[in-house]
Amino acid sequence: MFNFDFQNPTKIVFGKDRIKELNKLIKDNARVLITYGGGSVKRFGTFDKVYNAINNGKRVIFEFGGIEPNPKYDTLMKAVDIVKKENIDFLLAVGGGSVMDGTKFINLAANYKGETPENLLYGKFNENDFSKIIPIGTVVTLPATGSEMNSGAVVSHKNGKFPVMSKHSFPKFSILEPELTYTLPKTQVANGIADTFIHTVEQYVTYPVDAKIQDRMAEGILKTLIEIADDCLTKENDYNSRANFMWSATMALNGLIGLGVPQDWATHAMGHELTYLFGIDHGKTLSILQPAIWEVRKDKKRDKLIQYAERVWEIDIENDDEKIDIAINKTREFFEKLGIKTHLSDYGIKEEQIEDIIKSLEAHHINNISETHDLTIDIMREILKKAY
Amino acid sequence: MFNFDFQNPTKIVFGKDRIKELNKLIKDNARVLITYGGGSVKRFGTFDKVYNAINNGKRVIFEFGGIEPNPKYDTLMKAVDIVKKENIDFLLAVGGGSVMDGTKFINLAANYKGETPENLLYGKFNENDFSKIIPIGTVVTLPATGSEMNSGAVVSHKNGKFPVMSKHSFPKFSILEPELTYTLPKTQVANGIADTFIHTVEQYVTYPVDAKIQDRMAEGILKTLIEIADDCLTKENDYNSRANFMWSATMALNGLIGLGVPQDWATHAMGHELTYLFGIDHGKTLSILQPAIWEVRKDKKRDKLIQYAERVWEIDIENDDEKIDIAINKTREFFEKLGIKTHLSDYGIKEEQIEDIIKSLEAHHINNISETHDLTIDIMREILKKAY
Repeated sequence: MFNFDFQNPTKIVFGKDRIKELNKLIKDNARVLITYGGGSVKRFGTFDKVYNAINNGKRVIFEFGGIEPNPKYDTLMKAVDIVKKENIDFLLAVGGGSVMDGTKFINLAANYKGETPENLLYGKFNENDFSKIIPIGTVVTLPATGSEMNSGAVVSHKNGKFPVMSKHSFPKFSILEPELTYTLPKTQVANGIADTFIHTVEQYVTYPVDAKIQDRMAEGILKTLIEIADDCLTKENDYNSRANFMWSATMALNGLIGLGVPQDWATHAMGHELTYLFGIDHGKTLSILQPAIWEVRKDKKRDKLIQYAERVWEIDIENDDEKIDIAINKTREFFEKLGIKTHLSDYGIKEEQIEDIIKSLEAHHINNISETHDLTIDIMREILKKAY
Repeated sequence: MFNFDFQNPTKIVFGKDRIKELNKLIKDNARVLITYGGGSVKRFGTFDKVYNAINNGKRVIFEFGGIEPNPKYDTLMKAVDIVKKENIDFLLAVGGGSVMDGTKFINLAANYKGETPENLLYGKFNENDFSKIIPIGTVVTLPATGSEMNSGAVVSHKNGKFPVMSKHSFPKFSILEPELTYTLPKTQVANGIADTFIHTVEQYVTYPVDAKIQDRMAEGILKTLIEIADDCLTKENDYNSRANFMWSATMALNGLIGLGVPQDWATHAMGHELTYLFGIDHGKTLSILQPAIWEVRKDKKRDKLIQYAERVWEIDIENDDEKIDIAINKTREFFEKLGIKTHLSDYGIKEEQIEDIIKSLEAHHINNISETHDLTIDIMREILKKAY
């Protein structure tokens, strides 16, 4: 096990009927900006529930809607203007990963002392570059990204998708009401399950360092997702499966399973290009790439793939090579059963466009990635062909 | 899954050679009181390492040794005097659970505004009853209690052992260097493994509420302890087994596996009486009681005992009753293999003294405990007879 540091200050407020507690979670006289996405939180009444919970006559409440999936820098900068103009001192994100990520970025950008907030996209900042930091709360409507309990965000800008990490970005609190997921379209539930699955394997299917607790936790999340997927997709108002889904998503990316272990993140790095170039949903890009990455990299990841096969899929046969192949196939089948197509060709992409993806990876300096820093552009080309 | 709240602000600093980082973890001009136990931290050089790491010429450093196992109120109150007299503003606990628990109590007692700090023992206080709270750091030498990442403490006083819980008691940081455990006597390693095991089952072997992630994590900790026990006891300087042991102990009682699930804690409540009356090590009291509790309560805990048998011990037979019995026997064998005797009679206790234990439980109003609040004095008598 490698050395590690861990600290995660976010307060989780989980379960039925928790939104009403917002009133005591936010200071009495706050100037609150509620951020949200495409309007489903208004359509399904979540916005009203939130608004009514915090509207105590002393708070001044503003709203900013329209944060799109893969939130755009230009959109978020409009919210930054409101934060500055209205002296907002509390940000309340109501939505999924894009809204939470976008709100974290709004916070950083509004208080960034440097020349341009674009620097934040390119990692050209340090933690002292902010004049102050506004507390963020979240009300999660789509379990997937784990953004509710971590300090990361991904923001899209003219030339790609950029991760932005800052210790200032941990939400102060996050409300997780599994019932809020009942109104999600099936495709978003499927994407969320796939996203959570891949977050977990990016921190687990690497090489062994004898981190037994982290491995068991990762396996526990994967097994849980496999167990609940069907109920999540077919039973619309099933509290238990949605509660386990929601907590899986948070636990997959709140830092714990990645402590002291090698981490890959190549699937995410490559997947971001597919979203950027072709607009494919994040969860789907990961489902396309993961089986192909393992097929090409099975030697590098051999020991952990065997462990994954045995412990997660309970494949009990002699031959390790077969074991790995079966596990990869079962993973692909799992995504397909979620209703997610797992080949680039399924998305209307032409084979020659693989070179466009390669060019985009090169433009973003994505090379020599993965837990062993040796996933080169040439190997990525091979992976993309395998994923085709 | 029940509703739950979770927040744990403690920073974990884990791995090799981390004590030197104390210098940046404590403010430059702090007035620090280093607390420790019976002197082994001096004997093995840990105290010096800690002292040298923080001695920057600006800090004023005091020390308070002699915090005994099952730390006593009267002992801790002597440290409270130092804290008050010397205006201590940072407490640094170097030791195991007793030192960490004791130091949490010192902090609360030194800043308690009420009539007498004895109130803290009897739950007669609320979180606003403190004038200020001093930050605590810990350097863990004995993995067992999880005290390094939770807000609990257990303090002994003339008439028993008392849990003291306060949100003010989370350490600001805890340094976990697995190598510090190399000098531990085997019996303390065994006690720590048993304590961690029981912390886990107190939150797991109850009744099912479909909290899949929490269950998988609990099972992961138990399986890890079973896997590493032998190496921990027979290989003196084995980093991997000690690192996994250390992280298991923390994860077993930092709140995560107990989220949204019923919790028992009867084993601890009863065990405290055995320590109080007969001076039996905490970890040993738990190992004596747990198999007996399950034998007597196997109907109440049937579903989870079956799950425990199947997932933790991988018992693959048809008959569920047999499955449970085998699992209980394997648990008892596990403790015995650690070198811990699992019967009251092994500790020189006479059968008629069971009534003394019963009287002590009654005096401490320990009745109708467990996750179902129906573990009565009469059933406890039956358990003690079974444990004899």
